[in-house]
Amino acid sequence: MLARGLDPAPIVEHIVELAREQRARVREVSRSELDATARTESPQGVVALADPLPEADLADLVGDRAGVPFLLALDGITDPGNFGAVLRTAECAGVTGVVLPRHRSARITPTVAKAAAGAIEHLRFAVVPGMPSALRTLSSHDVWTVGLDAAGPRPLHELELSGEGVALVLGSEGRGLSRLVAQRCDVLASIPLRGTLGSLNVAAAAAVACFEIARRR
Amino acid sequence: MLARGLDPAPIVEHIVELAREQRARVREVSRSELDATARTESPQGVVALADPLPEADLADLVGDRAGVPFLLALDGITDPGNFGAVLRTAECAGVTGVVLPRHRSARITPTVAKAAAGAIEHLRFAVVPGMPSALRTLSSHDVWTVGLDAAGPRPLHELELSGEGVALVLGSEGRGLSRLVAQRCDVLASIPLRGTLGSLNVAAAAAVACFEIARRR
Repeated sequence: MLARGLDPAPIVEHIVELAREQRARVREVSRSELDATARTESPQGVVALADPLPEADLADLVGDRAGVPFLLALDGITDPGNFGAVLRTAECAGVTGVVLPRHRSARITPTVAKAAAGAIEHLRFAVVPGMPSALRTLSSHDVWTVGLDAAGPRPLHELELSGEGVALVLGSEGRGLSRLVAQRCDVLASIPLRGTLGSLNVAAAAAVACFEIARRR
Repeated sequence: MLARGLDPAPIVEHIVELAREQRARVREVSRSELDATARTESPQGVVALADPLPEADLADLVGDRAGVPFLLALDGITDPGNFGAVLRTAECAGVTGVVLPRHRSARITPTVAKAAAGAIEHLRFAVVPGMPSALRTLSSHDVWTVGLDAAGPRPLHELELSGEGVALVLGSEGRGLSRLVAQRCDVLASIPLRGTLGSLNVAAAAAVACFEIARRR
């Protein structure tokens, strides 16, 4: 759907071209119809309707066909902008799958999808009933679970990563990892801070951690 | 200024306590007066009025009293949320000073200050007439200028940092480094992407780059 009367722009022409190549139907609609459909805060005049995201099983993310897993487990992240930003960064770092708890987490809404800048189409998602038992499942599949925790005893860049699978576990914006999730992680690592502030934003912490793990794999 | 009728909360009591310790006058005002004073999007019931940020000279950031500089030069970043997030991350990574062009950059507005979560009080800022000549000045002070560029030939984690000063140079959200700024950098480095997406958000790129430099210093 394109808003009627949209200013001509190369990016819009490119979108229409791609849609036609994919045999997706392109419709012009009124600005008000488009804005009502968009469900994001500042729609920019183009909306695509897509099938629901396929959901993976946790076992799919660690199965033989998945290669050596590099997973991101998000335990309780709630801000859609942060959530989307983390997904975009994770995809860029080569994360192969994302583990989300069925409750206590933002869902993948249009706002999250937009902030993720396309990442949701390239990541696999497993929604699990509870994070602690998911971490146990990952351990049983030889995936090393690394919890990121401001008080974690091991500096992130001193972790010894070998060729095994890794799951990076991030907690919620305000409170970090829950106690039970922290207990279930194989190691708790922290990002050494060198300034005066007490903490990084969760999206920044995710960026540093994902790329540090990517570099060392 | 506190909004009248604010829900009691430990964080508010703590703010009032700190204000009293610092002999700052605390006033209760109507919610509408507070919201009008705040000038941020969702004020949370507390506003502090502060002196203007002191401005440093570029020479102050590289002078003998500054230690070995770790600078961040932001050439044309415009989104206040990104700008604030970058400042917060930079402070956490131990950045000692920030170089901003007088034009072509977001100013440090209340929105930026809020996103920076206090970082602006701990960073020193030099506002320069033009970034290319500022980079030349930095080079003449033996500060190594590293431009972050998606097409940069050197992977960031292969840079050889010795004990010298470093300035990390970031471009604008959409277009990256300007041609002239890129030419003036001593080296152009990139963050290797391992997924399908073509680029990181500027705040994520800043986080990865600041902490990679911090780790290697």
